[in-house]
Amino acid sequence: MGSAFQQALDADGEEWQAVSRSDVDIYSRSALRDRIRSSGATFLINCAGFTGKPNVDACEVHKSDTLMGNAVLPGILREVCEDEDLPWGQVSSGCIYTGRRQDGKGFKEDDPPNFSFRSPPCSFYSGTKALGEEVLEGAENCFVWRLRIPFDHVDGPRNYLSKLMRYERLLEAENSISHLGEFVKACLDCHRKEIPYGVYNVTNPGAVTTSMVVQWIQEELKIDRPFDFFESEESFMISAAQTPRSNCVLDTNKLQDVGIQLTSVEDAIRTSLQTGDWSESLGSK
Amino acid sequence: MGSAFQQALDADGEEWQAVSRSDVDIYSRSALRDRIRSSGATFLINCAGFTGKPNVDACEVHKSDTLMGNAVLPGILREVCEDEDLPWGQVSSGCIYTGRRQDGKGFKEDDPPNFSFRSPPCSFYSGTKALGEEVLEGAENCFVWRLRIPFDHVDGPRNYLSKLMRYERLLEAENSISHLGEFVKACLDCHRKEIPYGVYNVTNPGAVTTSMVVQWIQEELKIDRPFDFFESEESFMISAAQTPRSNCVLDTNKLQDVGIQLTSVEDAIRTSLQTGDWSESLGSK
Repeated sequence: MGSAFQQALDADGEEWQAVSRSDVDIYSRSALRDRIRSSGATFLINCAGFTGKPNVDACEVHKSDTLMGNAVLPGILREVCEDEDLPWGQVSSGCIYTGRRQDGKGFKEDDPPNFSFRSPPCSFYSGTKALGEEVLEGAENCFVWRLRIPFDHVDGPRNYLSKLMRYERLLEAENSISHLGEFVKACLDCHRKEIPYGVYNVTNPGAVTTSMVVQWIQEELKIDRPFDFFESEESFMISAAQTPRSNCVLDTNKLQDVGIQLTSVEDAIRTSLQTGDWSESLGSK
Repeated sequence: MGSAFQQALDADGEEWQAVSRSDVDIYSRSALRDRIRSSGATFLINCAGFTGKPNVDACEVHKSDTLMGNAVLPGILREVCEDEDLPWGQVSSGCIYTGRRQDGKGFKEDDPPNFSFRSPPCSFYSGTKALGEEVLEGAENCFVWRLRIPFDHVDGPRNYLSKLMRYERLLEAENSISHLGEFVKACLDCHRKEIPYGVYNVTNPGAVTTSMVVQWIQEELKIDRPFDFFESEESFMISAAQTPRSNCVLDTNKLQDVGIQLTSVEDAIRTSLQTGDWSESLGSK
């Protein structure tokens, strides 16, 4: 995520400085304050978070780190940025929801999380992400950008499209998802266009099911190998996961209404498939 | 809490070293590890936690600090103590419960919290304390000691008995509570008697209602001034509190069954009242 922002800023000829854990104690308010002051920064982006490797199951065994990275750090940054009067943005996640709203629509920004510690069951990861948003409630000068399942045309282990090609077996589910480059551009546009601060769902409009995306993969890459699916979410949980996953649909009208538009999810996926080199993921099976 | 442990250890002629935030970065695994190694310690007690001042309402506005102190820190200590093979104890809290069990008994150590993020509503404080216990699930060489509403014979703003004398108006509620000196002695006995590691409710056997304790205050201190009560918990919440309080009854059989016995709650309170100097709290009204 950090390098995606760096690439976008470079492409626009904007100056940036990266701050990592090895440069500064990011949990120290005073160290952060000093670093911000010496940087001359006019905007801060927090891409740090603890997602678990290889996946969110790892967060169930690294609970302190998960809490620190996803709930404590946003709160510290909020305090420092409010003290310094520095506008900033937090990369958050839509994984604090599951399914659709009861009325069948996608979740809006102000719908309370339904996949969180306060609305169990949830994964420890999602619980901490929801706490992170709670910690930022009422924050001044702060964007909260909700990402969901990033993808683009670059084949790799964190790319949703690559995962679908690489996994032995897939879980049928409906999701809103985010094209990484469009996500980053939309976040930067929030600052540039000076839209109101607050929470924004930053996903491509619409939703996809796993089998829809599999069909697009088969069509665009002209392959006919079969894709295996788990029989049910229960069977997925028993054989492949320790903690439940969020699958959810988000409403993107708030962002569209302020004039920031991502392409439709089908267009974004088909274009990514057409422009990428997928030989590594396809060869892995 | 720290000084109560220090006094008890001094009284027993045991050596101890205190580690505070100003001595060492307690959130740094490597700094903690170095400090533990240089100390030659054979047992570690974590009395640190974020309780909010003047009360838990403050935790609602200091969410990062509350999470850090109550949920992240126990997890860091667990990792360090497991790596160093150092037995230790965490001062936890019974405030992760409300009321009694459905069968009318007090909550046992393995009953899931019912006043926590996972079982709302709760205060942010209680939510983080429950997360702290979750982070310690399965910890090796670790005692989790649940304290409830400390009191003793020393008049002061954090003493339950003093609070009852000082508050303008009281909330009628039923609680298990902990005599501070007996709590500390019981915790130290857990280590000395080498009882099995795990979670223990460390409260005086039995439970009290606010009006029972008020009656004992009136009897023991021979005063007849009236004590005002809120009409209801709703009225207390509206006029005196931002976030709900835990009032709960704990079962103390697990500790008694391993041979560690606190005095009955009535005896402990009456003795505290008889042996203390309450003129400051009584004079404040």
